[in-house]
Amino acid sequence: MTKPLNEKTINIKPSGIRKFFDIVSEMKDAISLGVGEPDFDTPWHIRDEGIYALERGRTFYTSNAGLKELRVEIANKIKANRQIEYNPLTEVLVTVGGSEAIDIGLRSIINEGDEVIIPEPSYVSYLPCTILSGAKPVIINLKGENEFRLKPEELQNAITNKTKALIMPYPNNPTGAIMEKSDLEAIHKIILDNDLYVLSDEIYSALTYKGTHTSIASLPNMKERTVLIDGFSKAYAMTGWRLGYACAPEPIIKQMTKIHQFAIMCAPTTSQYAAVEALKKGDEDIELMKRAYNQRRRFLIDAFKKMGLECFEPYGAFYVFPCIKEFNMSSEEFATKFLEEQRVAAIPGNAFGDSGEGYLRISYAYSLENLKEAVLRLEKFINKLRKNNHK
Amino acid sequence: MTKPLNEKTINIKPSGIRKFFDIVSEMKDAISLGVGEPDFDTPWHIRDEGIYALERGRTFYTSNAGLKELRVEIANKIKANRQIEYNPLTEVLVTVGGSEAIDIGLRSIINEGDEVIIPEPSYVSYLPCTILSGAKPVIINLKGENEFRLKPEELQNAITNKTKALIMPYPNNPTGAIMEKSDLEAIHKIILDNDLYVLSDEIYSALTYKGTHTSIASLPNMKERTVLIDGFSKAYAMTGWRLGYACAPEPIIKQMTKIHQFAIMCAPTTSQYAAVEALKKGDEDIELMKRAYNQRRRFLIDAFKKMGLECFEPYGAFYVFPCIKEFNMSSEEFATKFLEEQRVAAIPGNAFGDSGEGYLRISYAYSLENLKEAVLRLEKFINKLRKNNHK
Repeated sequence: MTKPLNEKTINIKPSGIRKFFDIVSEMKDAISLGVGEPDFDTPWHIRDEGIYALERGRTFYTSNAGLKELRVEIANKIKANRQIEYNPLTEVLVTVGGSEAIDIGLRSIINEGDEVIIPEPSYVSYLPCTILSGAKPVIINLKGENEFRLKPEELQNAITNKTKALIMPYPNNPTGAIMEKSDLEAIHKIILDNDLYVLSDEIYSALTYKGTHTSIASLPNMKERTVLIDGFSKAYAMTGWRLGYACAPEPIIKQMTKIHQFAIMCAPTTSQYAAVEALKKGDEDIELMKRAYNQRRRFLIDAFKKMGLECFEPYGAFYVFPCIKEFNMSSEEFATKFLEEQRVAAIPGNAFGDSGEGYLRISYAYSLENLKEAVLRLEKFINKLRKNNHK
Repeated sequence: MTKPLNEKTINIKPSGIRKFFDIVSEMKDAISLGVGEPDFDTPWHIRDEGIYALERGRTFYTSNAGLKELRVEIANKIKANRQIEYNPLTEVLVTVGGSEAIDIGLRSIINEGDEVIIPEPSYVSYLPCTILSGAKPVIINLKGENEFRLKPEELQNAITNKTKALIMPYPNNPTGAIMEKSDLEAIHKIILDNDLYVLSDEIYSALTYKGTHTSIASLPNMKERTVLIDGFSKAYAMTGWRLGYACAPEPIIKQMTKIHQFAIMCAPTTSQYAAVEALKKGDEDIELMKRAYNQRRRFLIDAFKKMGLECFEPYGAFYVFPCIKEFNMSSEEFATKFLEEQRVAAIPGNAFGDSGEGYLRISYAYSLENLKEAVLRLEKFINKLRKNNHK
């Protein structure tokens, strides 16, 4: 017999998303609306740059923080689209996707016993990474009636004298919610008054369908306390390349770089060369993909309206989050039956936190054709449920 | 002002290796013997497989644990060259280089306050990753007279009732030392008697110049308590691809996979496809590179003998570790003067732990031509030192 393993890790549940993937992957003619990943291949000119790097034998480590040229392009991009200035040499770190940035951001900021506020429903990594960092997670159960935006009174109520950091998961996975500038301004003073750090996960920032994305780091006195996380996975359809970045003030980047240096070394080299191309010449690709996502988004919102399914209009990411409370069953039950009876996989909202109970995450990172068929099946499914409920 | 950051991270020193790189990169006509990375490009057929994956649009996430095909090949390889059977579905995890495997291996095993034994001199990540995991590092200062192998009495003396794990860093960076089967057998009983986990970092296993590499996991009852770490960086000259793996019993891999899933998601996809090719058809490449390394190794050992520089014969990795104690200066002083006067960069041995003081790490991942010039300069340098010392 061997000694007990790390107790924090043991108590962490594997992601609830995976279970549905495993079922759907073994089911013929099933339609999956489950995956949180663009359905587009990486644009060709970006792949071509990766290929060129491989052909030229650029197969060596880069510096720990990432290629200087890439960090310069990242800083330029953030300045252009968020009006925040980061020094590429000291305030930008290239990471293995946004995921690594979340993990090492928390590990750099947290001391054992600190509290981290996590608004939910939100991405499945925040809670385990918070627990692993030694912090106590404090959950804010966001409300459907607020379109799952974070409200000042909700934030205020979650703060104690141990609160160290707030995770800001907008544009949001799974709800598609965004925080507009006025929403951010409403919580700004509370953050400053309570001297909080903010991990702002802006991985879906490029996919904003109402105005342009505003980063909380752009508000007065926020840069010094914010780790801005973004990357290439969602905007440029580059998930498999595993490339993201963190922008933060030098004292934080310095600590994050140490962990990154020892635990990861550097982000993949081929991906870094491709990412330079993406930042320099990928704006048009984003625009094209965004247009396609937006068309699908409108289609779904319209379809839900027609079938009388309650759903607020989400302006970010590539998810809609319809409410299924009228059917008097749990999200898990609904999703399981929907999959069994209609062979369509969507993710139960509670996979992203208790406040997601009663909702369904539907990804529209799928072709319109697929979505049309899925909507037909959904309508059939809920019509039957409604009929049975009225018997 | 903002609140204090994580105290463990703040107290970790950045790697002492980097400093020398920064100096040498700004020095014209300097020869670097500093880098711990193969000088070969990744073999073409492996790069070609990466290119093919990009051309075919394989730019999506893989499963968290890695492509199944890759895990099968890894298990096959380990069975063939180490005679250990791992189930590819439950006992193999594909990671971002060996680095990530070290970090999440420790995070999975350690509980706050456990002790981890680290034989030094050794790779610069073990100490910080151990500290970050919440463990107390217990250093064994390996001895030059033992060729820096780990001896049973050294291990026994380091064990307390809090000892949870032992890091086994062989073939060793920076010393080039290996542990032969008889060396492993000598410490085997102590590990079992004290119920220790072992993190066996075998990233240089393919570069063994005396017999074949033996993994401690192949000894009786060791598989259940060992995390075997290897990867593609050193064997296949694939550093920039960031691809490694951990093999371990299911209970450990299960915990490691959770951390990996939330903190990293998956290893880079292009690299995974290329790695399948490497495992299937890369044996000849390893053989060719190994032959080149071995030639350089012999050249250096011979040259040191001729100039009367004390150095045991190292049988692993691509480092020699000559002793410079006769010159009555610190490793740092020696390396700095050598760089300034002769424009050759080697790394002070103490960058890898206190017991590296009095030694120099010289990498032979450089062309024989480079090494010949470096040796001429070294001879000039030490002849001058000896003359001055005898004045």
